[in-house]
Amino acid sequence: MLNSRHLLGIADLTPDEIALILDTAGAMTEIAARPIKKVPTLRGRTVVNLFFEPSTRTRTSFEVAEKRLSADTLSIAVAQSSVTKGETLLDTVRNLEAMAPDMIVMRHSSSGAPHLLARLCRSVIINAGDGMHEHPTQALLDAFTIREHKQRLDGLKIAIVGDLLHSRVLRSNVQLLNKMGAEVWACAPPTLMPADLARFGVRPTTSIDEAVGGADVIMMLRIQHERMHGHFIPSTREYFTLFGLTPERVARAKSDVIIMHPGPMNRGVEIDSDVADGPYSVILEQVANGVAVRMAVLYLLAGQETVTD
Amino acid sequence: MLNSRHLLGIADLTPDEIALILDTAGAMTEIAARPIKKVPTLRGRTVVNLFFEPSTRTRTSFEVAEKRLSADTLSIAVAQSSVTKGETLLDTVRNLEAMAPDMIVMRHSSSGAPHLLARLCRSVIINAGDGMHEHPTQALLDAFTIREHKQRLDGLKIAIVGDLLHSRVLRSNVQLLNKMGAEVWACAPPTLMPADLARFGVRPTTSIDEAVGGADVIMMLRIQHERMHGHFIPSTREYFTLFGLTPERVARAKSDVIIMHPGPMNRGVEIDSDVADGPYSVILEQVANGVAVRMAVLYLLAGQETVTD
Amino acid sequence: MLNSRHLLGIADLTPDEIALILDTAGAMTEIAARPIKKVPTLRGRTVVNLFFEPSTRTRTSFEVAEKRLSADTLSIAVAQSSVTKGETLLDTVRNLEAMAPDMIVMRHSSSGAPHLLARLCRSVIINAGDGMHEHPTQALLDAFTIREHKQRLDGLKIAIVGDLLHSRVLRSNVQLLNKMGAEVWACAPPTLMPADLARFGVRPTTSIDEAVGGADVIMMLRIQHERMHGHFIPSTREYFTLFGLTPERVARAKSDVIIMHPGPMNRGVEIDSDVADGPYSVILEQVANGVAVRMAVLYLLAGQETVTD
Repeated sequence: MLNSRHLLGIADLTPDEIALILDTAGAMTEIAARPIKKVPTLRGRTVVNLFFEPSTRTRTSFEVAEKRLSADTLSIAVAQSSVTKGETLLDTVRNLEAMAPDMIVMRHSSSGAPHLLARLCRSVIINAGDGMHEHPTQALLDAFTIREHKQRLDGLKIAIVGDLLHSRVLRSNVQLLNKMGAEVWACAPPTLMPADLARFGVRPTTSIDEAVGGADVIMMLRIQHERMHGHFIPSTREYFTLFGLTPERVARAKSDVIIMHPGPMNRGVEIDSDVADGPYSVILEQVANGVAVRMAVLYLLAGQETVTD
Repeated sequence: MLNSRHLLGIADLTPDEIALILDTAGAMTEIAARPIKKVPTLRGRTVVNLFFEPSTRTRTSFEVAEKRLSADTLSIAVAQSSVTKGETLLDTVRNLEAMAPDMIVMRHSSSGAPHLLARLCRSVIINAGDGMHEHPTQALLDAFTIREHKQRLDGLKIAIVGDLLHSRVLRSNVQLLNKMGAEVWACAPPTLMPADLARFGVRPTTSIDEAVGGADVIMMLRIQHERMHGHFIPSTREYFTLFGLTPERVARAKSDVIIMHPGPMNRGVEIDSDVADGPYSVILEQVANGVAVRMAVLYLLAGQETVTD
Repeated sequence: MLNSRHLLGIADLTPDEIALILDTAGAMTEIAARPIKKVPTLRGRTVVNLFFEPSTRTRTSFEVAEKRLSADTLSIAVAQSSVTKGETLLDTVRNLEAMAPDMIVMRHSSSGAPHLLARLCRSVIINAGDGMHEHPTQALLDAFTIREHKQRLDGLKIAIVGDLLHSRVLRSNVQLLNKMGAEVWACAPPTLMPADLARFGVRPTTSIDEAVGGADVIMMLRIQHERMHGHFIPSTREYFTLFGLTPERVARAKSDVIIMHPGPMNRGVEIDSDVADGPYSVILEQVANGVAVRMAVLYLLAGQETVTD
């Protein structure tokens, strides 16, 4: 059982809770393998997917998870909606919860938006990404994928390489992996390196060779197009030369290394196509595990809600 | 039982029919309180939500209502669709109904569009707002909310304040409240006051103090941003000074007054945040009741349709 | 049973397979006539509607078909999604299929896109229109509609009139009708006439009177607005004068001719309103049959998938 009614970030989870979510996700992976991929667990429950930022990948993953659990789903993309009519975020969410949904899955460009709402609203809130802050289900699905391959998280050398500065995936992953006893290395050009990484128990380096050397896991982060050709990166080509994951660099890692990427990938920018599609890549497994992990979170919080409310 | 196969406007409803809808909505409010908020009433029925104007609030409320009744729902936002390919409204709707939906919920920017279609198409049509004409389910949920608090509608003093000129909410509410015997006061600046209000049995005033004095219900209407800083209103600030609902103005009403707003609110323009969030506000109850009233309408018209077709 | 796991185009279907789909669609039309228009055939199956081009008509038809078969549906419009983040088409689809959908219905502006994906992905793929190449479910619903009226396809004179150059509807229809033994005439202005039509067993003509003379079926194709007033057509008015279907021209066809149009129609451009709404028009039947034909395709491929996977 989870202590919180919400899933706002990895920061709030204990190692036991993380393990519980991952174990539950393990049970959920079976459902995707059945011809009838549906269990009645959340029948008659309404889950609202409230996305203030565009997202195909994460929203689709949540929708599939919700439908596999037989929930009624409602997806609201808020760019073109009431917010443009001048309504506040809090009013938008309070209005939604007046319709008595059971859970709200939300993505918002402001760090801390789901935390604010969790304090002020009655609904169960699942953070599907807030600003540059947290993306807890991404970290959980990454951890699940690692555990499937390595049977453990503690003691592993995990290299995270890419745009560390703007990445909520980094922030959630670092916290989760630290809690579970992994050794996290973080690599980026100086312009994309946060100042206080060491404070979070991460080993920062600007050398990808140092980061991936002997690594059990290499996790590549996306370089966003809007950051190229500008302040942060001289050019796509130079970035690839200095920080792109090539087969040569993979060869410096452990022989059973796994390569991860939260997607969407920029092939030829942060990762070579031969690596993305190569034998060490578990990138599509991450996507598949995302559905199972989100089913687990929805299931655990739904039970929670029944007890609490 | 309703006389019409459609819900096009309050104009077509008798007081008995209004009472039937409100009573049915009362039964529907129970369902939202259950852990499994779903009844099989409309299983296997298809409801199309056809929105030619953007709307999060009303569309979401209808979708939730439809799913609670187990209908299959299909939401079509028509801005980016066939209409831009030069097809007529009538062709768009006739094509949809060739797919044999059971009901079409539609919003359109032209007054009278649903009435035209109801004459020319076979489908059951529910008007979810047409131009500056009617928004019947909004008036019904407002009436339901008032009745919950006052146990009656007749004899109440109800003040409607705001942009009366462009408001379909006003038009539907005035007709419903008149039919049910309430005394309706309408208040706006002269630029936003329709010429013929008195003809509808409404008492027009440009003084908010006169409108809200001794009122049982104060219903604030939204000031649309596109009307500010222009022909109709000198400035947001001046509007708030002259017509904004403040705690001081609420104090002029009855001691058990309720404050309503169809949303989305412009806090600090037509309503003070202290009032919006204060003890007299029933604004979020309106949203919750919206789902119940729409379930009632769908239920009553679905029964209708089975009988008629 | 179908030989292929996918429906990519009419090109891949044998006459027997086409007949099987049409016969199955016949059984499906019954379902739309029931008060509860739903069968449990695809319960627990997930169908993703992946539309890289906007489409209300075809997407809605597929969604209705999927819901009538009790599938879980997920509709993704990809213009505003990951593709804009620089991900490749193949990555987008591989990510989707990692979530284990049972089928992917896709529309794409590039001819051959579904065929590429069918080779590289595991999912069952249904082509809902690819570039100027194929639109197989449109040709199947057209054939179904003709067969309902004429009890056969072979030996019929079928005139297809309009923008032949850019039409995937033409390409799929010509192949299907040829395979089934119909005699296809194709009529367009020289600027909209493909060079190699005769090679496909079609009789090309620039005279609409010759095309429709003695025809059993007249199929009008849409003139796209973006092609008017430009290189292809001098003006809307002149096009209508030379190629528009008027009652006078219909009179040259057989006395039991049926008039078809895949929609959306440009009334007064390619077709006169009196013809579109007249006694020979089966245009709305086409739409209704579209749902039945898509149900048949989903049903047949779903069975396929169970066997093959």
